[in-house]
Amino acid sequence: MQWVKVLGGLVGASALLGLGIILGHFAIPKGADAPAPGVSVSQDLDLEILETVMKQLDASKIRENLRELSREPHLASSPRDEALAQLLLQRWRDPESGLDAAEAPTYEVLLSFPSRERPNRVAVVGPTGTILFSCRQSEQNLTGEQGGPDVVPPYAAYAPPGTPQGALVRLREGAEQDMTSPLLSPKHSLIPLPQAINAAKHGVAGVLVYTDPADINDGHSSASQTFPNSWRLPPSGVERGSYYEYFGDPLTPYLPANPSSFRLNPDTVPGFPPIPTQPIGFEDAKILLCNLQGTLAPAAWQGALGCDYKLGPGFRPDGDFPADSQVNVSVHNRLELRNSSNVLGIIRGAVEPDRYVLYGNHRDSWVHGAVDPSSGTAVLLELSRVLGTLLKKGTWRPRRSIVFASWGAEEFGLIGSTEFTEEFFSKLQERTVAYINVDISVFANATLRAQGTPPVQSVIFSAAKQIPAPGLDGLSIYDNWIRYFNRSSTAYGLVPSLGSLGAGSDYAPFIHFLGISSMDIAYTYDRSKTSARIYPTYHTAFDTFGYVDKFVDPGFSSHQAVARTAGSVLLRLSDSLFLPLNVSDYGETLRNFLQAAQRDLGVLLEQHSISLGPLVTAVEKFEGAAAALGQHVSALQKDTPDPLQVRMLNDQLMLLERTFLNPRAFPDERYYSHVLWAPRTGSVATFPGLANACSRAMNTSLGSAAWAEVQRQLSILVVALEGAAATLRPVADL
Amino acid sequence: MQWVKVLGGLVGASALLGLGIILGHFAIPKGADAPAPGVSVSQDLDLEILETVMKQLDASKIRENLRELSREPHLASSPRDEALAQLLLQRWRDPESGLDAAEAPTYEVLLSFPSRERPNRVAVVGPTGTILFSCRQSEQNLTGEQGGPDVVPPYAAYAPPGTPQGALVRLREGAEQDMTSPLLSPKHSLIPLPQAINAAKHGVAGVLVYTDPADINDGHSSASQTFPNSWRLPPSGVERGSYYEYFGDPLTPYLPANPSSFRLNPDTVPGFPPIPTQPIGFEDAKILLCNLQGTLAPAAWQGALGCDYKLGPGFRPDGDFPADSQVNVSVHNRLELRNSSNVLGIIRGAVEPDRYVLYGNHRDSWVHGAVDPSSGTAVLLELSRVLGTLLKKGTWRPRRSIVFASWGAEEFGLIGSTEFTEEFFSKLQERTVAYINVDISVFANATLRAQGTPPVQSVIFSAAKQIPAPGLDGLSIYDNWIRYFNRSSTAYGLVPSLGSLGAGSDYAPFIHFLGISSMDIAYTYDRSKTSARIYPTYHTAFDTFGYVDKFVDPGFSSHQAVARTAGSVLLRLSDSLFLPLNVSDYGETLRNFLQAAQRDLGVLLEQHSISLGPLVTAVEKFEGAAAALGQHVSALQKDTPDPLQVRMLNDQLMLLERTFLNPRAFPDERYYSHVLWAPRTGSVATFPGLANACSRAMNTSLGSAAWAEVQRQLSILVVALEGAAATLRPVADL
Repeated sequence: MQWVKVLGGLVGASALLGLGIILGHFAIPKGADAPAPGVSVSQDLDLEILETVMKQLDASKIRENLRELSREPHLASSPRDEALAQLLLQRWRDPESGLDAAEAPTYEVLLSFPSRERPNRVAVVGPTGTILFSCRQSEQNLTGEQGGPDVVPPYAAYAPPGTPQGALVRLREGAEQDMTSPLLSPKHSLIPLPQAINAAKHGVAGVLVYTDPADINDGHSSASQTFPNSWRLPPSGVERGSYYEYFGDPLTPYLPANPSSFRLNPDTVPGFPPIPTQPIGFEDAKILLCNLQGTLAPAAWQGALGCDYKLGPGFRPDGDFPADSQVNVSVHNRLELRNSSNVLGIIRGAVEPDRYVLYGNHRDSWVHGAVDPSSGTAVLLELSRVLGTLLKKGTWRPRRSIVFASWGAEEFGLIGSTEFTEEFFSKLQERTVAYINVDISVFANATLRAQGTPPVQSVIFSAAKQIPAPGLDGLSIYDNWIRYFNRSSTAYGLVPSLGSLGAGSDYAPFIHFLGISSMDIAYTYDRSKTSARIYPTYHTAFDTFGYVDKFVDPGFSSHQAVARTAGSVLLRLSDSLFLPLNVSDYGETLRNFLQAAQRDLGVLLEQHSISLGPLVTAVEKFEGAAAALGQHVSALQKDTPDPLQVRMLNDQLMLLERTFLNPRAFPDERYYSHVLWAPRTGSVATFPGLANACSRAMNTSLGSAAWAEVQRQLSILVVALEGAAATLRPVADL
Repeated sequence: MQWVKVLGGLVGASALLGLGIILGHFAIPKGADAPAPGVSVSQDLDLEILETVMKQLDASKIRENLRELSREPHLASSPRDEALAQLLLQRWRDPESGLDAAEAPTYEVLLSFPSRERPNRVAVVGPTGTILFSCRQSEQNLTGEQGGPDVVPPYAAYAPPGTPQGALVRLREGAEQDMTSPLLSPKHSLIPLPQAINAAKHGVAGVLVYTDPADINDGHSSASQTFPNSWRLPPSGVERGSYYEYFGDPLTPYLPANPSSFRLNPDTVPGFPPIPTQPIGFEDAKILLCNLQGTLAPAAWQGALGCDYKLGPGFRPDGDFPADSQVNVSVHNRLELRNSSNVLGIIRGAVEPDRYVLYGNHRDSWVHGAVDPSSGTAVLLELSRVLGTLLKKGTWRPRRSIVFASWGAEEFGLIGSTEFTEEFFSKLQERTVAYINVDISVFANATLRAQGTPPVQSVIFSAAKQIPAPGLDGLSIYDNWIRYFNRSSTAYGLVPSLGSLGAGSDYAPFIHFLGISSMDIAYTYDRSKTSARIYPTYHTAFDTFGYVDKFVDPGFSSHQAVARTAGSVLLRLSDSLFLPLNVSDYGETLRNFLQAAQRDLGVLLEQHSISLGPLVTAVEKFEGAAAALGQHVSALQKDTPDPLQVRMLNDQLMLLERTFLNPRAFPDERYYSHVLWAPRTGSVATFPGLANACSRAMNTSLGSAAWAEVQRQLSILVVALEGAAATLRPVADL
């Protein structure tokens, strides 16, 4: 029985010192070659170990990892993706640098692929049916890596097949227009386009998506100014992506995609785009767009293709095509059930093995995925190598368990991570201290950027303060970070600002479905130098090792910085006696949300006799309880604390995030259950349930059902905050 | 700060022995007058303390408690109910026998009362409108206690006002008939009548409910054979009750009924009976029923009123009333928002104050409520007195926290307990080891009876084996119990059988909404001596101290037996180092459910290509994981266990029940989220989600939505069982 073996292993070392517990703090022997340390229930973070790890994380090893990982395209469920899963498994089972155990569980998930036999095609068709112009069906082979059978042609995953044809019109994201034909839409965000759904209501039969050089290239578009000559997106580059509205395997919401699980009918699955959709490059888009006739598009709709953008419908008679030419969008995508693996590796905690610190990165890519996600996978491999080496040498074992996860099928909708949370819901919810996500580790090499929930702010700060910023003598990562992203904190003064967690990567099921404090860490752009929506070769066949090595992070010092930051956060969470989760920091967020609500919704609410008084009280109670708990922590930290008392306190800290979860709060949403971080429509930066309900109620009459829903959302929120405060109070208070 | 004070108090004693932790097991000093014991993290159940408690629980003190508690009617929210809340508060704050702290939080809940100005009335109205006969508007004042302004007249709480009039017809519970007038229905169960809702669909305008002597009095009905001359229900006796379909405050589902909480519109609240309903005594029922004309009612519908029961509609011409006489049911009930208090008292745990053992009883009654619920309140007071006395003397402090709860407004729909669970959802779910409910403590004095979820079976058995059965020399409660309720266990052979938990008392929100292992303990009937549905004066004005003292438990030895059993269970849960929750016993339940499903649903499922294979596998995995964990417990128990290891194990045991909770499993249900114990329609004793879905799908075609729901329910179940097994495995297994 594995448990007994592990127990035997742990106790064996301490048996020399007698049965029972060794109290007090045993310094872990210095030097990497010390024998397995005695197990001490008061085991705390060892700063020397931390320093060792920081030093051993090697930029050139990360670089070599990346080279191997991005050598071939590794689309989810492809043979190369599976081979990489095996690579991770082997590394994590390595006798000298591996973990305690590793597995690669597989799910059977619904993916979407273009047809090899019938490639998708966008063409201009003349009045007699002649093909006058065809968009590229693959990106230009600029570096020798864009050809090859494993480079999946550009497509919009989960867009349905069809061959609509009609006059081309323009539509910008979110706009409502009366249209009857294929529309050409620039891609403005990383999430699936809702306008396809919107457009279908207006008689649009097909959607084309492109990325404008204004949005991605700071206006540049010529070959000499784009990759491989610069960082920027080349004219043939096309951004692939998933157009599924939700996340998780589409056929098995709330259930793991095991072979025997109940599955929805693929024909009626909600959340797929209703009409054929296809992405194209801006070179091709230029030809289509600059030939449109009609009224001039609004100023905000103009871009950098070198012509005045018109709205259509249809082509201008004085252009490249006869006036009554049409656009044909032929999509032959297919839904397919495929096997996708996660890879999980564990280092069992020495003292509290039932407390997990999770660190995840997805493995699958659209093409070579050098930045996305292999820059993160490369970091993951190096971090697990360094920790595994210390482990195998017997130098160190974390206090709590560390679980590394390589997620599959993230690109299709965070599928591997979501299935994992569905399968192990209870176990994860009860035991997970925090989830660290490093998807892309380096978007650009200017500064750290972190997203996360408030409790993890302080540990990220602590880590960042101790690590030198790459290429900036004497500055810490923190010192550099604060110059790019900062805010004025009532508690701390000027500090770096943490972004909030949406659904852009695998932290989504952890924070929104399980209520686990989560974060995402990466290095990113200097926004004074570029306004690119994202690094320009994102999701294209140009996201290659060469691109990273030459343009994103030559020398890989930013990769190393991320490895160190994330590694330091990981160790602080896994090894510190007192969990470095700061609950008082949540009070600041609540206070800010409250003030925004008072300022921007207060008058409206009063008109409907809805008082924010109970919310004010609830926030105050939370602040008070959090402050008192913080003092209790400080008091405990001064003495030799009783491990059970520490455990009880740590439970309070760990479980705070859970108290904000309410699966009945948003019955129309999929997975979203966190009353503070569910998606917010509208611009008021406040509690989402309240904000969204107010938006919906705003134009309805007094006493309407919509206004009752505002009251219900307010009550849900108040009860959640009061409940959270109750868990922070001394544990044996009534 | 209270936490610091408590901590100071606990640590003070051990300060003499030096800071830090005292290892090993310190025997708690013998003798009741020993000073406060040193705090030991290995503190375990002290059998001497247990024995002391057993001895000190005093039958005559329970009797005196009951006399005082039932002296006056104490309907929920009445002045006397509030006064009793204060009584409990005082006792729990007593300096010599009280607890650490006590509070009486109040909720604002929607109750229902008859009108004082316009009492409800059931009458026979002649063809010209003359009142020919009126049913009693109150029960007969047989003992001088049935008069008085605080005796609420018989009524059906939450039945709407109205004055329907028409020809009387018979309806027996559950039957579907085409009717157009008030119907007369015998009450066959303790839950609100669904047939009122059903009847309304058939044109029935009002409902009368009565209890037949055949169901409640073993056929007897004369004055000499009924109370006050015997145990039985007198002819004027009427059973009050709540006719609300759900539980919890009707206006605030899922939210605590605080003043500022969102409330539904009382006019459109779901779950109230649609038509006026009124209960009457069998004396009056006889007059109405024995005058009915029409076909003879089926044999199963005949009772003991001394005539042949006919179905109606309308009266026979040769009876007491003219043939075209009608029955008028005038109901003037009112919905009212009222303040209802819970009373909570806590004994803080010495070692793990963040682990709660909850013990609850409701306080409110319909009239005097001597049996229901004051027989339980009397036990609660005596148990808390004995424990409080040991506490105040410094003789004992439990390892874990004990919370005593006196619930308000249970009779109206488990309101006080449900509001409590809504308000403290997270805190309770994360920390509660078990919930012990003692509502009525003595239905009758023949044998123990217990309901509960499998993990608590063993601790109830352990307790029962150590306590002598009242009035049966040499037999333990267990030995007596097994003669009345037994089953054949594959693991243990013949054992007493535990009933399952529905929604009959305050355990319902704990097991169904929070997923906390729960139980209900009482003494009950010898079913060979009576077939009464329940003790005959249930919910009538005859449920008085005299009734209990003379007919239910003269000498109060059964009350004492329940106090001892529940007290012993409480102490074992609060004090044992290893939680006495047996997870392997859940395997037996799962196995039985599985076998019933295979036997009774297997063929049907196969016809629809639904395989139970994954369910078989899941049950096997559960059994294996539970068995392995049990072995791990045994191994740990042999050594001096590390308190953290014990804590980790205890967390696994405590949290098992939670893993069966899925708030998305039954979206049409209110609160019910436990995949094993949600209400089951149909007769197959198996998993409710599966059974109910099969019932609904049974007459639908292949591939229907109803059969898809069967598959979904099966998957939900499999995932829950696999998830449960995963939490039982060694904590650091992937």
